[in-house]
Amino acid sequence: MPPVSCNVKILNHTPEPLALIYAAFRQCYHSGYIVDMWERLLSGAVSKEEQAEFVRKVIESGHTSPIEHVSFTFAAEGISRALSHQLVRHRIASYSQQSQRYVNASAFNYILPPAIAKNPEAKACFEKCMLDITKAYGELKELLEKDGRGDKAKEDARFVLPQATETRIVFTMNCRSLLNFFEHRCCLRAQWEIRHLAELMLEECKEVLPVVFQYAGAKCESLGYCPESEKFTCGRYPQKS
Amino acid sequence: MPPVSCNVKILNHTPEPLALIYAAFRQCYHSGYIVDMWERLLSGAVSKEEQAEFVRKVIESGHTSPIEHVSFTFAAEGISRALSHQLVRHRIASYSQQSQRYVNASAFNYILPPAIAKNPEAKACFEKCMLDITKAYGELKELLEKDGRGDKAKEDARFVLPQATETRIVFTMNCRSLLNFFEHRCCLRAQWEIRHLAELMLEECKEVLPVVFQYAGAKCESLGYCPESEKFTCGRYPQKS
Amino acid sequence: MPPVSCNVKILNHTPEPLALIYAAFRQCYHSGYIVDMWERLLSGAVSKEEQAEFVRKVIESGHTSPIEHVSFTFAAEGISRALSHQLVRHRIASYSQQSQRYVNASAFNYILPPAIAKNPEAKACFEKCMLDITKAYGELKELLEKDGRGDKAKEDARFVLPQATETRIVFTMNCRSLLNFFEHRCCLRAQWEIRHLAELMLEECKEVLPVVFQYAGAKCESLGYCPESEKFTCGRYPQKS
Amino acid sequence: MPPVSCNVKILNHTPEPLALIYAAFRQCYHSGYIVDMWERLLSGAVSKEEQAEFVRKVIESGHTSPIEHVSFTFAAEGISRALSHQLVRHRIASYSQQSQRYVNASAFNYILPPAIAKNPEAKACFEKCMLDITKAYGELKELLEKDGRGDKAKEDARFVLPQATETRIVFTMNCRSLLNFFEHRCCLRAQWEIRHLAELMLEECKEVLPVVFQYAGAKCESLGYCPESEKFTCGRYPQKS
Repeated sequence: MPPVSCNVKILNHTPEPLALIYAAFRQCYHSGYIVDMWERLLSGAVSKEEQAEFVRKVIESGHTSPIEHVSFTFAAEGISRALSHQLVRHRIASYSQQSQRYVNASAFNYILPPAIAKNPEAKACFEKCMLDITKAYGELKELLEKDGRGDKAKEDARFVLPQATETRIVFTMNCRSLLNFFEHRCCLRAQWEIRHLAELMLEECKEVLPVVFQYAGAKCESLGYCPESEKFTCGRYPQKS
Repeated sequence: MPPVSCNVKILNHTPEPLALIYAAFRQCYHSGYIVDMWERLLSGAVSKEEQAEFVRKVIESGHTSPIEHVSFTFAAEGISRALSHQLVRHRIASYSQQSQRYVNASAFNYILPPAIAKNPEAKACFEKCMLDITKAYGELKELLEKDGRGDKAKEDARFVLPQATETRIVFTMNCRSLLNFFEHRCCLRAQWEIRHLAELMLEECKEVLPVVFQYAGAKCESLGYCPESEKFTCGRYPQKS
Repeated sequence: MPPVSCNVKILNHTPEPLALIYAAFRQCYHSGYIVDMWERLLSGAVSKEEQAEFVRKVIESGHTSPIEHVSFTFAAEGISRALSHQLVRHRIASYSQQSQRYVNASAFNYILPPAIAKNPEAKACFEKCMLDITKAYGELKELLEKDGRGDKAKEDARFVLPQATETRIVFTMNCRSLLNFFEHRCCLRAQWEIRHLAELMLEECKEVLPVVFQYAGAKCESLGYCPESEKFTCGRYPQKS
Repeated sequence: MPPVSCNVKILNHTPEPLALIYAAFRQCYHSGYIVDMWERLLSGAVSKEEQAEFVRKVIESGHTSPIEHVSFTFAAEGISRALSHQLVRHRIASYSQQSQRYVNASAFNYILPPAIAKNPEAKACFEKCMLDITKAYGELKELLEKDGRGDKAKEDARFVLPQATETRIVFTMNCRSLLNFFEHRCCLRAQWEIRHLAELMLEECKEVLPVVFQYAGAKCESLGYCPESEKFTCGRYPQKS
């Protein structure tokens, strides 16, 4: 049960994402049927630069519904249950998370917060606590199995597992939901762990679909000012006057 | 402005849909990280039959959330605004629809209901009405343009356009939302036009992902009985006793 | 079948909306149980001004999730099917709309666009078109009934009904969804009819819950600039530099 | 930091819920404007029995969208973070949850699983683990505060807090989402703690709006059979043949 760190990958995404967004936008203002345009789009009749330029302008003016047609599926490991509880609060998304009811946690991994890692005394205290919990989990699981709880032993023993326990999760979000996710979670006011996840996700998204994600990030990036109060602003952008 | 008929195509869908659903389901019950399994899945280490069998069993037991990771994008033409108004009531979906505010409808196409098509007198009445409306739209557009309404002339002239007017739309739904769509719209109680669209969509979906859509359709298909009241049941399945 | 105009009323709303939002916000940062605070809130232990001030500050800093606990149910009449098709595109909402399949439209009311109303020639053309359609609807309904279509006669005859046809609808939105609705639909770029509806709704909301709706409206009101492109900006606010 | 148990209350709900659902259903099939009917409904012109009978029939036939107009806001205490992580997976809902980043957990309460409570050895092991964690949390918080982390000390110290830690939450769901919640969470396959919460919620809902919640509960109650596989079925209902 070593400390582990965040690893997130795009497992899958909608193919030809730029062409799809371009085609969907065009269908709104175009008299023809977009299927007739689709093959031409894929064969390069409209250059990727031209598609990107068109899409960029419409997104900038605030009309972002067609980017919903494109979804990304991520798989993450090395994240804590503290993080995943925040993650699943994003409701325009789909989640498949490792279950603590079904998966044995006898040798659970955990996330070690950086601020604790760099203070030796705190680190020792944290690690001892992880060991205490591992021991308690094992004992409880055994005692409950003796009581005939069978598979349900894990379900109850896990009540001692810490928020730091590693979890693994597959999740899908469309681009519009992702922009919202980045607005909230790339902000310095967000908790460090989910902010780190968001930054890694954003890097991956930028590679696949730069036109949508180029200027994505904390709200201040698009607003040009920080909406947080004086107490919470990080100072990168001025507050709204 | 001829009558037109429904044409719907899958423009795009999540790639490797079966493997993705299988991987997401497995992540819930599996201690490892699904990314490590993903390459093996794509290279055939678990046969498609085995994947399908696993997925089929979990869906049958009512646990359908992992099928949300897979989305289909459809493009439809030859459908009426009467249909599209019903379609967009499905809220777990994304839509990009041809705008009557921006697209000129001077020579609009229309959908001719089959029950009207087969009665010559009704057909003549319907067609005359379409002509009257076309004429009125043209006149109104011209008069409003003279009044200096510019592009907004279309926006107001379109108030005379019939529910039968053809529209074109790009829409994306995930598999779970699609199953719900088929439950409601493949039912004989649904309006004929949206039922026809639903049947065409279902055929396409079955080809791509049979394990999910094999038994999809009206609610009665999975329930084994008809939930509608005596007045509305079609008789294909017995009512609940 | 006279022209009719928009009438929208709050039919119902979550009771004690300010206290509920205050309590929900406080629960996030408060060690106690909010139920213990609830009776005190209702009996005035925290003044409405103090509650409003607290809520205002948190909303301004962009944390709006607790306002979702409060919903408004509206009933609207005197709106067109052109409007309702736009309205139901707002997906975080619930709708119960008068059905053209079940309700007889032999003497349908309609919405007369103001730009048409003030041009006598256009008005005459529009009104004649409404009469032509009324006549066609009546004939088609009768012919289809003779063909034994029964109740389904209305379902097909309605294909001739214009976008201008009046509809009635009951709809519920929570405050967060309403703020989004107003951002898009109070903008001068929105179509005149839905903008008018949005303005009427906003007036009603302001009376019930000023702290949430005081500064609601088009996006520019909160952004301080217009996000639209040069072609579409109305000029009330400067564009983003 | 004693063990605590689940306490859930309806804090608020849409007023006149039966009349609202009746009115919304009626608006779909009625030529008039429902606002004109509303006052008569509230004054008893249609008896509550008649309203309930109408609503009951439409719900039974599977048309449940109008029940969405009615929402319930609950406040819960005495529930674990293990439970709340499951709860917030229900996405058609609004949540305001006590934050472990802002609320001091130096003397956190916890949920003691019944299967552990009745085994003295397991109970002792569990309680010792809670004490170990409380001690570690206190030490970490102090060490991090000394490091100048200020308020953020809580944010990192909380990584040791167990899944058993009590949380408090305010949440709002509409009736349709509640029916879905009960289908999944009143099932014996659901985890004991969230099932207990669901049962308490259902009791409260039945008192306020019996017509909607009378037959609510696990899926088997409405299906008449158990959709789970042989391994997981509880035997109360036969499996589908």
